[in-house]
Amino acid sequence: MIKGYTLPRTPLGKSSLVPNPPWHYVGNAIAVEYKVNEDIAASFLPEGLELSSAQCAVYFIEWQYASETGEEYLDPVCSQYRETIVLLSASYNGSPVAYCPFIWVDQDKALMRGLIQGWPKQLGETWITRPYDLSSKAAPVVGEGGKFGTALSTNGRRLIEAKITLEEKTNSFPSPTFAGAVLLRHFPELVKSKHDKPAVHELVQLKSRDVKVSPIWKGQASLNIFDHPYTELPALSPTSIIAGYRFSVALTVDDLYPLRDLK
Amino acid sequence: MIKGYTLPRTPLGKSSLVPNPPWHYVGNAIAVEYKVNEDIAASFLPEGLELSSAQCAVYFIEWQYASETGEEYLDPVCSQYRETIVLLSASYNGSPVAYCPFIWVDQDKALMRGLIQGWPKQLGETWITRPYDLSSKAAPVVGEGGKFGTALSTNGRRLIEAKITLEEKTNSFPSPTFAGAVLLRHFPELVKSKHDKPAVHELVQLKSRDVKVSPIWKGQASLNIFDHPYTELPALSPTSIIAGYRFSVALTVDDLYPLRDLK
Amino acid sequence: MIKGYTLPRTPLGKSSLVPNPPWHYVGNAIAVEYKVNEDIAASFLPEGLELSSAQCAVYFIEWQYASETGEEYLDPVCSQYRETIVLLSASYNGSPVAYCPFIWVDQDKALMRGLIQGWPKQLGETWITRPYDLSSKAAPVVGEGGKFGTALSTNGRRLIEAKITLEEKTNSFPSPTFAGAVLLRHFPELVKSKHDKPAVHELVQLKSRDVKVSPIWKGQASLNIFDHPYTELPALSPTSIIAGYRFSVALTVDDLYPLRDLK
Amino acid sequence: MIKGYTLPRTPLGKSSLVPNPPWHYVGNAIAVEYKVNEDIAASFLPEGLELSSAQCAVYFIEWQYASETGEEYLDPVCSQYRETIVLLSASYNGSPVAYCPFIWVDQDKALMRGLIQGWPKQLGETWITRPYDLSSKAAPVVGEGGKFGTALSTNGRRLIEAKITLEEKTNSFPSPTFAGAVLLRHFPELVKSKHDKPAVHELVQLKSRDVKVSPIWKGQASLNIFDHPYTELPALSPTSIIAGYRFSVALTVDDLYPLRDLK
Repeated sequence: MIKGYTLPRTPLGKSSLVPNPPWHYVGNAIAVEYKVNEDIAASFLPEGLELSSAQCAVYFIEWQYASETGEEYLDPVCSQYRETIVLLSASYNGSPVAYCPFIWVDQDKALMRGLIQGWPKQLGETWITRPYDLSSKAAPVVGEGGKFGTALSTNGRRLIEAKITLEEKTNSFPSPTFAGAVLLRHFPELVKSKHDKPAVHELVQLKSRDVKVSPIWKGQASLNIFDHPYTELPALSPTSIIAGYRFSVALTVDDLYPLRDLK
Repeated sequence: MIKGYTLPRTPLGKSSLVPNPPWHYVGNAIAVEYKVNEDIAASFLPEGLELSSAQCAVYFIEWQYASETGEEYLDPVCSQYRETIVLLSASYNGSPVAYCPFIWVDQDKALMRGLIQGWPKQLGETWITRPYDLSSKAAPVVGEGGKFGTALSTNGRRLIEAKITLEEKTNSFPSPTFAGAVLLRHFPELVKSKHDKPAVHELVQLKSRDVKVSPIWKGQASLNIFDHPYTELPALSPTSIIAGYRFSVALTVDDLYPLRDLK
Repeated sequence: MIKGYTLPRTPLGKSSLVPNPPWHYVGNAIAVEYKVNEDIAASFLPEGLELSSAQCAVYFIEWQYASETGEEYLDPVCSQYRETIVLLSASYNGSPVAYCPFIWVDQDKALMRGLIQGWPKQLGETWITRPYDLSSKAAPVVGEGGKFGTALSTNGRRLIEAKITLEEKTNSFPSPTFAGAVLLRHFPELVKSKHDKPAVHELVQLKSRDVKVSPIWKGQASLNIFDHPYTELPALSPTSIIAGYRFSVALTVDDLYPLRDLK
Repeated sequence: MIKGYTLPRTPLGKSSLVPNPPWHYVGNAIAVEYKVNEDIAASFLPEGLELSSAQCAVYFIEWQYASETGEEYLDPVCSQYRETIVLLSASYNGSPVAYCPFIWVDQDKALMRGLIQGWPKQLGETWITRPYDLSSKAAPVVGEGGKFGTALSTNGRRLIEAKITLEEKTNSFPSPTFAGAVLLRHFPELVKSKHDKPAVHELVQLKSRDVKVSPIWKGQASLNIFDHPYTELPALSPTSIIAGYRFSVALTVDDLYPLRDLK
C-alpha cells in the first residue's frame, strides 16, 4: 500500500510533496491597499461572488513554514519561500470576503499547499526589503520614516513594484485581508471530452486558526503594475493608492470551508 | 465570467498557468535501464497495478513545449524545461505498462501539465550533457564512444547521477517506456474530515499521439542514487545496470484514458 | 604552498574556480546585426579605440565548456552556461576590431574566465530557442522559415529580446564578431587613495585558436532593448536592424594579446 | 571617456557591477566554532601567514547592502544575498588574524565586491533559519532553546550543514572573526607565458569601519562538511565542535590594508 497526503505516494508515506495538515506559518509582510476600476475588478470574480468595493490589496510576504511534527525551518530550503498575493474586495451571500485572482510563490511545496486551498499559485520571484536589529544605511527602521521596497518578477519580467514609507502604528489590518478569503479550488480533466468539465471546481473559504499579528505600521505607498504578456493582472492596475503596511503574521492551516460546488 | 483551462481563471482566459490541450513536446533524452529489488519495487505500486519485472528506467530529458496555437518556443522561458522521470515495470489487467513513482521538473507550467496527467511532479534541477554539431573537447559525439552525463538535484542535494557511453544504434526504445504509462492522478481535500478522502484519486493511462522517435543510440551506463532525507527513491537503487540510451522524442498530449477510480 | 590558477588557492590546487587554460568551448548562437547612433556608440569606447561604424551585433549563446584534461561536460552544472554579448564596431591602430561594452552569463566559472579575458561579465538569464532533430510544433527547423527567439533578463527585468526568421545560408559571419575582439581588462583597488587607480587597466585582444564554425543561416530579425534602471545599454538601442543569424561555433582559449596599458 | 569603479565602464559610469565604496552592510549571522587538524589547516595558508591555532569558524550570513548614495535595499534583488564564510586562525607578523580559504555568495555584485577585497568568492546557495517576532511552530526564538539550521550547496551538492541551539548570551564574538581578516587578493594573467605570474597577488587586510554587533547568543552546535568533488574544503572537516552563535552585524567597507606583495 502506498500512502501520502499528496503525490508522490510511497510505501512509508514520507515522500509526499506536502505532508498532512496542520501546516504552520509565520511571515513578514508588506502590503499596499489601492483602488481599481470597479467593473474590471468585478469581471475577475467567479460565479457566486460579487464585488463589494473597488479596494484591492497586494501582499508581499517572506514566509517560514513547518508541519505539525516537523522542524522544516531547520532545513530552510524546505521551509522558506516568498509570495505575492493580490486580493479583491468581494462579498459572498452579503458578507464581505477577499477573493484572490493572482498569487505567486517561489517553491514547490508552497505552490502545492496553495493549490489544495484554492490559491491560483504560479512561480515568480518576490523580493522584500528586510529590517535588521542594528542601525545601518543598508536597512530601514521599523518605525517612522522606515522605507521598504518590494518587487515581483515572473517569466523574466518585472510585474509589480511597490515602495512604502512607514508613518504610524495602526490597529487596522490591511483590507481586503486574506483571513477568511474565498478561493476557487480547481483541478482540470485531461480526458478529451472533459476539457471544460474540471474534476474539481468549487468555491471554498480559508479557515486559519491560531492567527497572530504583530504591531502594524502604516504609511505612504507607491505601486506599479507593469505590462506583461502572460497575465491579465495589468487590467487591475491601481487608479489610486490608499496606504502601505508592514507587519508580521503567524497562522495555522488544517481545514477549509466548502461553500459551493461550481461543477 | 472568468475562464481558463487551469487557474488563474480570468475574463479573457489568457492568464491560465496552462492553456487548453493539445500540448506539443519535443525533447532530447538520456535513459538508463536498471534493475531493482522486486519486492521493494512492488511496494511502490498503487492499487490496481502489479509488478511485471524488476526492470526500471530513469529518463533525463531537455524539453521544449508549445501549445496548439502558440509559439511558446519563441519565448523559451515559457517553453523550455528539464525533467527526470523514474519508471517501474508494472502490468494492468495483465498488460505491461510503466508506472511513475517519482518525477522532477524545473518549471511551473510543466509541473502543472504533469499533475493534470497524474505525473507526481516536484521541482528539481536536471542537467544533461548536450552534443553539438561541431567537433570539440567540450562536447561528445552522438556516435560510438560519445559520453554523456546527467544529474538531478533536489532540495539542494544531488539525488541521481548517470553516465552513458554510446556504442551502437538500436531499434529498441528503453524499457519501461513512458508511452502508455499508467499514472496515479490525485488531488487532496483540505476539509478536516477528508484529509484521507482525496477529491481525485484514480488510475489513468497516458494517451500521446503523433509520437516520433529519432534514431536511438545505446551503450554502457553507470547510475547512482544517493541518500536523500526527503524521498524514498533511494529504496529503488540499482542492483544492476542494464544499458544507457540517447535519443530524441516528439509527441502531443490532449487526452487521457481513465482506468479505475480509487476513491 | 597553496596553488591554483585562480582563487581559491589550495594545497592540491584542485579547488580553483577556474583551472589553468586551455579552455575549450562549443556553443549554439543566435546573433542580430543592427545599427546604433554613432556618437553614442563612440562614447562607450575606451581610450585607444575609435568607432569604425555604427554597426553592432548582439549574440545569444548556449555554451558547453571543458578544460584541457577535464570532462566537465559530463557534469553539466560545471560546464553549461548561457550568455548574451553586445559588440560595437571599433578600430585599433586602424584595424577593425570588435569591442564589448556589455556581457551577461549565468554561471560563476564562466563569469571568472570572462573577467580574466577582459569581458565585463555580470549575471543575467539568457534564453534561446533550441532546434531539435525531429519535426515538431514545439521547435523550429534550422532552415528556411525557422523561427528562433532569444531573451536576456537581469535584476528581475527583461532587458533584451530578439526574434529571427531564417532565410538562407551564408558564408559571412555576423559583424562585428568576437574573434579578435579588443577588451578592457580591469581590476580595481580598494585601498582608499587608489579607488581611481585600478590595479589592472589595459586594452587586450582575444586570441582564440582552433576556431570552427558551422554552416551559418541568415534571415530577418527583430530586436528590442528595454529601459532598465541599472545599465546604460538602452542608449545603444537599435536605430535599424540589419539581419539575424544562427550558427554553432567552437574555440579554444589559452592566450591573450596585451595591447596597451591604460593605468 | 568611459568610467566606473568596476566594469562595465560606461559614459555615465552608472552601469558598473559595483559602484565606488563606501559599501554598507548589515546581516544576520549563524556561526560555528570548531577545530580541525592543525597540519591540514596550516597547508591552506598563503605565504606570509602561519597557523595560530586549530580553531576555525564558519559563518552563514543573510546580508543586505547599500552604497553610500544609494538605497539599494529598496530594490532588494540588487541588495540582498546570502553567504557562507570559512575562516582559519592564522597569525601575521605574530599578530592573530583570520584567513579565509573558502567563501560562497549567491549574487554577482557581492561576488565582485568580495574579489576586490581578496575574498575567494564563488557562487553557492546558503540557507539560514530565520527568527520572527511572533511565537510560532515555524520559527525559533532568539533565546534559550532556540534552534537554527544552516546549509550551503554548491554545484548541485550539499557541502555544509550546521545546526545550533541557543543557550545563553555572551560578550565574545566567535573566533576567528572576519574583522581584520587577512586575505589573498589575486587576479590571474591569461597571456600564455604568464599563467603562473598573476597580475595581482598580494596579502591584504580587511579594514571595516562603523562596526556594530547585536547581543550575541551562544550555544551547542553540530556541523557537517560533506564530500564534494570540486573543493578541498572537506579536508578541513571538524575534529571537534566548540560552539554555535547567533548575532547581527553591521559594517562599512571603503578601504583595505596592503600587507605584502606576493608576486
